[in-house]
Amino acid sequence: MKVALLMGSKSDYSVVQRAERIFKAFEVECETRVISAHRTPRRAAEFAAAAEDEGIEVIIAAAGKAAHLAGVVAAYTPLPVIGLPVKSSTLDGLDSLLSTVQMPSGVPVATVAVDGAENAALLAIQILSVKYGDLRRQMKQYKEDMARETARADDELGAHDL
Amino acid sequence: MKVALLMGSKSDYSVVQRAERIFKAFEVECETRVISAHRTPRRAAEFAAAAEDEGIEVIIAAAGKAAHLAGVVAAYTPLPVIGLPVKSSTLDGLDSLLSTVQMPSGVPVATVAVDGAENAALLAIQILSVKYGDLRRQMKQYKEDMARETARADDELGAHDL
Amino acid sequence: MKVALLMGSKSDYSVVQRAERIFKAFEVECETRVISAHRTPRRAAEFAAAAEDEGIEVIIAAAGKAAHLAGVVAAYTPLPVIGLPVKSSTLDGLDSLLSTVQMPSGVPVATVAVDGAENAALLAIQILSVKYGDLRRQMKQYKEDMARETARADDELGAHDL
Amino acid sequence: MKVALLMGSKSDYSVVQRAERIFKAFEVECETRVISAHRTPRRAAEFAAAAEDEGIEVIIAAAGKAAHLAGVVAAYTPLPVIGLPVKSSTLDGLDSLLSTVQMPSGVPVATVAVDGAENAALLAIQILSVKYGDLRRQMKQYKEDMARETARADDELGAHDL
Amino acid sequence: MKVALLMGSKSDYSVVQRAERIFKAFEVECETRVISAHRTPRRAAEFAAAAEDEGIEVIIAAAGKAAHLAGVVAAYTPLPVIGLPVKSSTLDGLDSLLSTVQMPSGVPVATVAVDGAENAALLAIQILSVKYGDLRRQMKQYKEDMARETARADDELGAHDL
Amino acid sequence: MKVALLMGSKSDYSVVQRAERIFKAFEVECETRVISAHRTPRRAAEFAAAAEDEGIEVIIAAAGKAAHLAGVVAAYTPLPVIGLPVKSSTLDGLDSLLSTVQMPSGVPVATVAVDGAENAALLAIQILSVKYGDLRRQMKQYKEDMARETARADDELGAHDL
Amino acid sequence: MKVALLMGSKSDYSVVQRAERIFKAFEVECETRVISAHRTPRRAAEFAAAAEDEGIEVIIAAAGKAAHLAGVVAAYTPLPVIGLPVKSSTLDGLDSLLSTVQMPSGVPVATVAVDGAENAALLAIQILSVKYGDLRRQMKQYKEDMARETARADDELGAHDL
Amino acid sequence: MKVALLMGSKSDYSVVQRAERIFKAFEVECETRVISAHRTPRRAAEFAAAAEDEGIEVIIAAAGKAAHLAGVVAAYTPLPVIGLPVKSSTLDGLDSLLSTVQMPSGVPVATVAVDGAENAALLAIQILSVKYGDLRRQMKQYKEDMARETARADDELGAHDL
Repeated sequence: MKVALLMGSKSDYSVVQRAERIFKAFEVECETRVISAHRTPRRAAEFAAAAEDEGIEVIIAAAGKAAHLAGVVAAYTPLPVIGLPVKSSTLDGLDSLLSTVQMPSGVPVATVAVDGAENAALLAIQILSVKYGDLRRQMKQYKEDMARETARADDELGAHDL
Repeated sequence: MKVALLMGSKSDYSVVQRAERIFKAFEVECETRVISAHRTPRRAAEFAAAAEDEGIEVIIAAAGKAAHLAGVVAAYTPLPVIGLPVKSSTLDGLDSLLSTVQMPSGVPVATVAVDGAENAALLAIQILSVKYGDLRRQMKQYKEDMARETARADDELGAHDL
Repeated sequence: MKVALLMGSKSDYSVVQRAERIFKAFEVECETRVISAHRTPRRAAEFAAAAEDEGIEVIIAAAGKAAHLAGVVAAYTPLPVIGLPVKSSTLDGLDSLLSTVQMPSGVPVATVAVDGAENAALLAIQILSVKYGDLRRQMKQYKEDMARETARADDELGAHDL
Repeated sequence: MKVALLMGSKSDYSVVQRAERIFKAFEVECETRVISAHRTPRRAAEFAAAAEDEGIEVIIAAAGKAAHLAGVVAAYTPLPVIGLPVKSSTLDGLDSLLSTVQMPSGVPVATVAVDGAENAALLAIQILSVKYGDLRRQMKQYKEDMARETARADDELGAHDL
Repeated sequence: MKVALLMGSKSDYSVVQRAERIFKAFEVECETRVISAHRTPRRAAEFAAAAEDEGIEVIIAAAGKAAHLAGVVAAYTPLPVIGLPVKSSTLDGLDSLLSTVQMPSGVPVATVAVDGAENAALLAIQILSVKYGDLRRQMKQYKEDMARETARADDELGAHDL
Repeated sequence: MKVALLMGSKSDYSVVQRAERIFKAFEVECETRVISAHRTPRRAAEFAAAAEDEGIEVIIAAAGKAAHLAGVVAAYTPLPVIGLPVKSSTLDGLDSLLSTVQMPSGVPVATVAVDGAENAALLAIQILSVKYGDLRRQMKQYKEDMARETARADDELGAHDL
Repeated sequence: MKVALLMGSKSDYSVVQRAERIFKAFEVECETRVISAHRTPRRAAEFAAAAEDEGIEVIIAAAGKAAHLAGVVAAYTPLPVIGLPVKSSTLDGLDSLLSTVQMPSGVPVATVAVDGAENAALLAIQILSVKYGDLRRQMKQYKEDMARETARADDELGAHDL
Repeated sequence: MKVALLMGSKSDYSVVQRAERIFKAFEVECETRVISAHRTPRRAAEFAAAAEDEGIEVIIAAAGKAAHLAGVVAAYTPLPVIGLPVKSSTLDGLDSLLSTVQMPSGVPVATVAVDGAENAALLAIQILSVKYGDLRRQMKQYKEDMARETARADDELGAHDL
């Protein structure tokens, strides 16, 4: 099982690497790429068109501003495509979010929160776990760990003096 | 293979049934339910917690306004959850969209466009097709048909008199 | 009389503690908890369902982004629930506000301003003062003190040299 | 027990009367008034200042556009004040919502959804039920009825033919 | 001729003092006050109701968040009232702007840009200059100076090396 | 005393004529013009530059979308300029509002609510009444009549059967 | 000289044909096409890549929602590309506008107003008139006619009875 | 061939100079000016009216807040005008963007992204390259270089250790 993790610009990597860490923790192979829908459109098209044959099963596309990468990739592949809107210096991420999520009928992009790189990776794992039982087990463990951590924060706070 | 198609209120059904039609066309079993995160929270929790054991593989949750259904369901299940924001009478769907997509780290919701019911269904099918090769084939066919239809619209327009 | 003060994440505590200080000043017992609608959904449901029997009379729920905590708690309890939207790093708090306030018919959440922790506590005290006459007296005193403080700021400014 | 239900303009009454119906169903006395913060400011101030002595325990204030009524009333009374933002012909209710909810520190307004008249009334009843046990019982019944109604919608939908 | 320059909170003064400087430059008497529509509502009402008799001819009201001060003052006086929306820490000033400008029919507030303190003062001077010819002359001079300054910036830039 | 009432397009007249009616009621001479900052820029510049000498004392400029008319007129005249943002078919008036109100330092535009034609006229009258005592008296009467009308609506509602 | 006028969906044609009429009036050859960045991505890429060789000198791309067409076309061609955001049924055109205009550095799209089809065509003509002197002359005539029409509307209004 | 690069305020120069650098790289003559639609309206009108005769072929106008400069310039010239919205300290650039792009029918402004100075320059070059073949060749080279740079970033990332 393999995931592709695309970003439109190298400057998105500070956000995107949080997704990489999730994949590492779940031992999911992840191919990280800088591919731009606008600066390297042919590469984006070729990558997307070939992804299925390359053994990639889910694609994450991170981009900011007029974030077309996820939509462009989704146009060329039958694979599920996850869109990760990245906040840029203006308009507080609303442009990235709307450009990613408001896809026209026929070509969906599974969009997560602005700068939500961990969730993009977790969603990819949830999708893979439809097929791979071991990932499903890891995902359940992840949810339990997360619950335990929140419970511990709750306990610690309970001990504080006002 | 089975999909659950939840809506928070019966009034969402006029949007949601466009998803049902897609599942019918792809011959994917779809269990459509009215389950509210706010009015029937226990039912929502129980449904989500039991969904995996019931053989459901993907869940779609449609809701409007402060649209919590997808997030609540995602909290109780390791399955991939698709959020379908429904436009309500005020704020033009922005409330539904942000309430669905801006999930905190750890619990993703795969969000599609406001009122994007077809895309919610197509995304579910793309997710299932990671496992089911036949759905992948259908999905490719769907994309080809769609391209052909757009091409035909292009040809028809070419014939018009200005 | 007792108030529960919930937050969805420990990182919300820097905002939430301003509410704690108000309760301390009014000598209202306050149980502060970290309970997440998404990471610890069962704990949230159980807490909300038991709150009335535990002697809690008002609940404040603080959360950011897709802020579902107040709505989820309100679904499980007949107690008045106050929603405190917390600003996150993107979208300037609009997501938290809309996710909290735009509740569907049947399950209200009494929403205060983004990051308005003091007002969440003061609103809880106003609600309790419907029953507890002593809190009403304190509330009146609080309003008088506040007016006096503003008047003093007015006087001080009056003395400034342009 | 008595509630005041204020609106800034007679034209808000088509929204506000949905709150009146809730109060009628719960047999809560409700004084409905047209009082404008801008057109009848003295009346608004006098009403708010006298409300506690008149036996009013909760105030709802409905207004549109630059919706100042709830804030103005809250300035003059220690009673809990519920703000009901009403959608006007421009800006889709965002102006009413922000004008109502974004109150500065010290003077909270318990804000409900845009045009959320039922929820304004239900919130008032939840507040009163802190004191009046019978209203608490009715509120629980209301929530159960609501759950049952949603469940019935769920059952009816289950029987539909795709 | 005299102008009143009100602010809802002492924290608005860093913005408001830019208006004071304009009045000083034009030698217009300016009474600067901290008066809150929410914390000192009676003082606000009394000030506004008495302003005309006190010889005040224009009122500027600066406030942030749910900025009701200008509207409340305008309700009590026939004088022209200028609203100066102040940006607060959330929502980027949109709440202040909409709360100030979207006044219902019958009670206008002359609104300037978010944090536009200089323009609030200049507008007050333009209003006074309807009556006071000397201010009109100063205003023309101000516009000429401003044009000259911009022209100088243009000339200086013209000399730069690329 | 004379007011100029400009609109950027004849299609704005359905909104603008509500201002004309106010001027008629107050017996203020009003010159209504269709002058576009974009389609007839020279006419706009000449009109604005000559307005003071023509005896005009206040100018109202109504425009939609990228509403530049008020700003352009304000650039050419020392007279107070009132901006009336007109809602167009997209973006719900937010474009008109921001284009009108967010004027840079040095050139204020006194902005009223989106489609707030009555308030634009009333603000013009409040400005004129700084000079003309009779208008001040009429304005007070107007406010009293408005208060009385609202009080009557209040009384009528008091008589209704729930 | 030839212009390509692309739309992402046949449903955009009701807006787009207003551009066609402008081209007809200016006698500029216009090739109108339905080409979708998402449904027919290869056709879009091929069209854009070949456009220069086909003799096309300017491209207009109209699309709604997550409007990627203009950006995708601009990625494949050195020709100037005009983006025409089309309003869809949700979010009032803000999604289309931001998706079109917020292009990352390196690949500009010349964006016009939401649904601004006439202006898209006029901008194309202004661009062509850099090369074709006759179009420049027509453009000047167009501006004069437009000014005259506005002036006539001004005159007609001048004759109306209040 | 010559381009004019206007900015409304000297403070916009930190953004605008990124456009200058593009013109320098492409060896396009660029006249940079500080001309304000509001502070120096006559200079703006005269410049725009004379631009064609001065040999200018494209105009870029950069401005913030209520950004009228591009629209005002476009009103006076048949040349293509590019609008560059500059982010100011409030409202995150949305005011500048809408004021620039939402031009009424008849007078287009070719708008680029908020603070998108490079793209404003590149668009000007694309427009000029309709006429000047050498610029077309440079533009193609620029796109190739950009693609190569992105490909190199892709390669470098490929070598990183997770």
